[in-house]
Amino acid sequence: MNHFISFRDVEDKEALLEQALSFARDPWQSEDAGRHKTLGMLFFNPSLRTRLSTQQAAYQLGMKVIGLNADQGWKMEFEEGVVMNADRAEHVKEAAAVMSQMVDLIAIRSFPGLTDRDKDYREEVMTGFCKYSRVPILNLESSTLHPLQSFADIMTMEQHRSQDRKNTKVVLTWAPHIRALPQAVANSFSQWTLGYGYDLVITHPEGYELDEAFTPGARIEYDQDKAMEGADFVYAKNWSAYRDYGKILSQDPSWMITSKKMDLTSQGKFMHCLPTRRNLEIADEVLDGPDSLVLKQARNRIFAAQAVLFGLL
Amino acid sequence: MNHFISFRDVEDKEALLEQALSFARDPWQSEDAGRHKTLGMLFFNPSLRTRLSTQQAAYQLGMKVIGLNADQGWKMEFEEGVVMNADRAEHVKEAAAVMSQMVDLIAIRSFPGLTDRDKDYREEVMTGFCKYSRVPILNLESSTLHPLQSFADIMTMEQHRSQDRKNTKVVLTWAPHIRALPQAVANSFSQWTLGYGYDLVITHPEGYELDEAFTPGARIEYDQDKAMEGADFVYAKNWSAYRDYGKILSQDPSWMITSKKMDLTSQGKFMHCLPTRRNLEIADEVLDGPDSLVLKQARNRIFAAQAVLFGLL
Amino acid sequence: MNHFISFRDVEDKEALLEQALSFARDPWQSEDAGRHKTLGMLFFNPSLRTRLSTQQAAYQLGMKVIGLNADQGWKMEFEEGVVMNADRAEHVKEAAAVMSQMVDLIAIRSFPGLTDRDKDYREEVMTGFCKYSRVPILNLESSTLHPLQSFADIMTMEQHRSQDRKNTKVVLTWAPHIRALPQAVANSFSQWTLGYGYDLVITHPEGYELDEAFTPGARIEYDQDKAMEGADFVYAKNWSAYRDYGKILSQDPSWMITSKKMDLTSQGKFMHCLPTRRNLEIADEVLDGPDSLVLKQARNRIFAAQAVLFGLL
Repeated sequence: MNHFISFRDVEDKEALLEQALSFARDPWQSEDAGRHKTLGMLFFNPSLRTRLSTQQAAYQLGMKVIGLNADQGWKMEFEEGVVMNADRAEHVKEAAAVMSQMVDLIAIRSFPGLTDRDKDYREEVMTGFCKYSRVPILNLESSTLHPLQSFADIMTMEQHRSQDRKNTKVVLTWAPHIRALPQAVANSFSQWTLGYGYDLVITHPEGYELDEAFTPGARIEYDQDKAMEGADFVYAKNWSAYRDYGKILSQDPSWMITSKKMDLTSQGKFMHCLPTRRNLEIADEVLDGPDSLVLKQARNRIFAAQAVLFGLL
Repeated sequence: MNHFISFRDVEDKEALLEQALSFARDPWQSEDAGRHKTLGMLFFNPSLRTRLSTQQAAYQLGMKVIGLNADQGWKMEFEEGVVMNADRAEHVKEAAAVMSQMVDLIAIRSFPGLTDRDKDYREEVMTGFCKYSRVPILNLESSTLHPLQSFADIMTMEQHRSQDRKNTKVVLTWAPHIRALPQAVANSFSQWTLGYGYDLVITHPEGYELDEAFTPGARIEYDQDKAMEGADFVYAKNWSAYRDYGKILSQDPSWMITSKKMDLTSQGKFMHCLPTRRNLEIADEVLDGPDSLVLKQARNRIFAAQAVLFGLL
Repeated sequence: MNHFISFRDVEDKEALLEQALSFARDPWQSEDAGRHKTLGMLFFNPSLRTRLSTQQAAYQLGMKVIGLNADQGWKMEFEEGVVMNADRAEHVKEAAAVMSQMVDLIAIRSFPGLTDRDKDYREEVMTGFCKYSRVPILNLESSTLHPLQSFADIMTMEQHRSQDRKNTKVVLTWAPHIRALPQAVANSFSQWTLGYGYDLVITHPEGYELDEAFTPGARIEYDQDKAMEGADFVYAKNWSAYRDYGKILSQDPSWMITSKKMDLTSQGKFMHCLPTRRNLEIADEVLDGPDSLVLKQARNRIFAAQAVLFGLL
């Protein structure tokens, strides 16, 4: 791997998964792998669990870590050839090239604005850094993707599936929320689940269709109850509309995941990337129930990041 | 110790004190104790000296450290069973459980709002984290207590007392300030001083009585001059009212600690947790004088934290 | 060296330079030098590349690092004897003394306000910390100086000059900008370049004269084209006026550095400390051209900091 921005950067998906599962069993097995290496973490947006899990993963590889908060106004220019006489104080050409001389890996978090779809889906921060950095770039959640989350989700399903992947039914279901959230987790979960060969059904109210670039081969089902039938894994997540970009089209409470809905599945396991709004997205009974995998997913964030860092070193 | 929230969590107070004094003599004696262990530090409020001293203590035990600033709006829900459709984005159930899977110890700072006494004295942040974390919780100053400061204060008195504790007179005196400050340091100092068997007198203008839960056995004296008589240690600190909660009832400058007041003591030593407002709380002559222990207290913050971390590991 | 605030703190300038060049060749040669030592970094203003390079330098010496952001209102008092009843919560006497008991070196960034010249040029933050700290203070850019940048610039010129220093013509040229920037980089570059014996010409529009304390022996030339003639190095930088303090007196676009201007030099190399505003201060063609040293300067920031830390340990 040169960079880790999306599933497409993964060269050998089975080897990467095996590596992550191996770190889950023995976290300190490669504690000299990152000797004399420093991970720079650049946050254009706040982060708690991604920061914790990625930093812990780096420590388990013997790396040093430097965290940089750029969320209070390091405005960067991404266009070529412009006269920089407005509020953007530095061009990505310098920013990326300079940082990449000082650290050995650069991890970046940069959320979408959710107002200009073309701009968000162009992924100018990740694209710009990949172009001008001399060291690998690691995506800690970008405008449209959250690959370290999705890889941890894949690990978790691998640890809990009872049949081969193509006969394992995974349901990605939209759930209600009061805020307009990015499509990144949903896009990325679709891309990874399909990439690893699972049977994916996506269910949401009409209008919430995701960018088809991330969902080739998934079935769309607008009836949530019907989608749940026979599911082995139910992954709930809110997202705002892709078509009518960034909009909240529905807050229909009947889409909340309850035990009654989980009863429609084939003893399905419940998943969510967290944080979640209890009793708005998901009922307490599901989150606190025996079929909830949410804490296991969170723990796997460490080992997913560790395997990716190991691969990039 | 399972957690370190208050003096009540200390199982063997003499052993803990001996450990801290031992680290003060030889800081690096246990530098492998924290191998492969990570301390997560979560700040809901700003911190400089507590962050420095605790992080340095962790380093002296060979631990890794990850600091997280949650002071810009990680609004957390603590109630059970609520529908999370307002501004609180995550329930402590998930937050604590997730963090505790990623690090080995969680240290938390969370100040009071000083408007709702019941809420502040319920200590919902510490209580919630202790309930849902799978690893020990360390109090870096909560709504009502600051035990690492108080333990460092105990260490400092132990290093400077000339008689046994019950014959050593300690005076906690209120001092003027222009801001409404928490009662945490005063509560905690009382609890620890009494817990270690010192003779404690608390002096303050009427109306500034502390919560009696923290001061059993202390004598209250409203005449500051009278309180100072024969004191071996004078600990000055401002706090806002507990009864008329969070209010400033007095800014009477005659309560400032001066040399003249210290002359009433039995060659008493002067203490303060810092930061302090010079010539408002304390006169320059006292802070800069030979009987001031304030810098020694500050230095002991490292070793107090180190002994507690060592105990929790 | 006791502290590292300005060029005047350097005792043996050739030895320091040789040390930095040596670290550039072999960064990990002294990785045990900082064992059991902690660098505290205190930022009163934001920092990205200075934080990265200094932290990486500390890691290469085996030091621990603790970063503290004081940019959101740790208001400090520097006057002696005042009654602290306004917004300043802590006196530098305590702040510096306490920090210096917890770490082994203190690095500080503190920018000027650009409104009160006497206050800025008094350097009260650096002066106060040097006075009350018990450990060395390292300047990460103060009101009037940026010595780690200038030392990295000297390293870069040393690596690229073809003649002895006194026959190497260095041109420091003012360049246009839309914001009022400090004089720190220009002051400091002048002080170091002259200190190392280079032939320095400073060019700027009238009114932009620097404080002569930093430019003894430099020639001032108001005609930029004339200044460029025969230059071996051209260092571009914007600064606001020193005389009419903090003011923008010109935004004349003809001062932007272009290829045509570089053609006037003696195959001169181009330098800038970054970040820079492309096509406002410097044309793309110069920054992206073969004679640009800007990325080499940035990389040398690590080794300059490493040599200074090594000297202070």
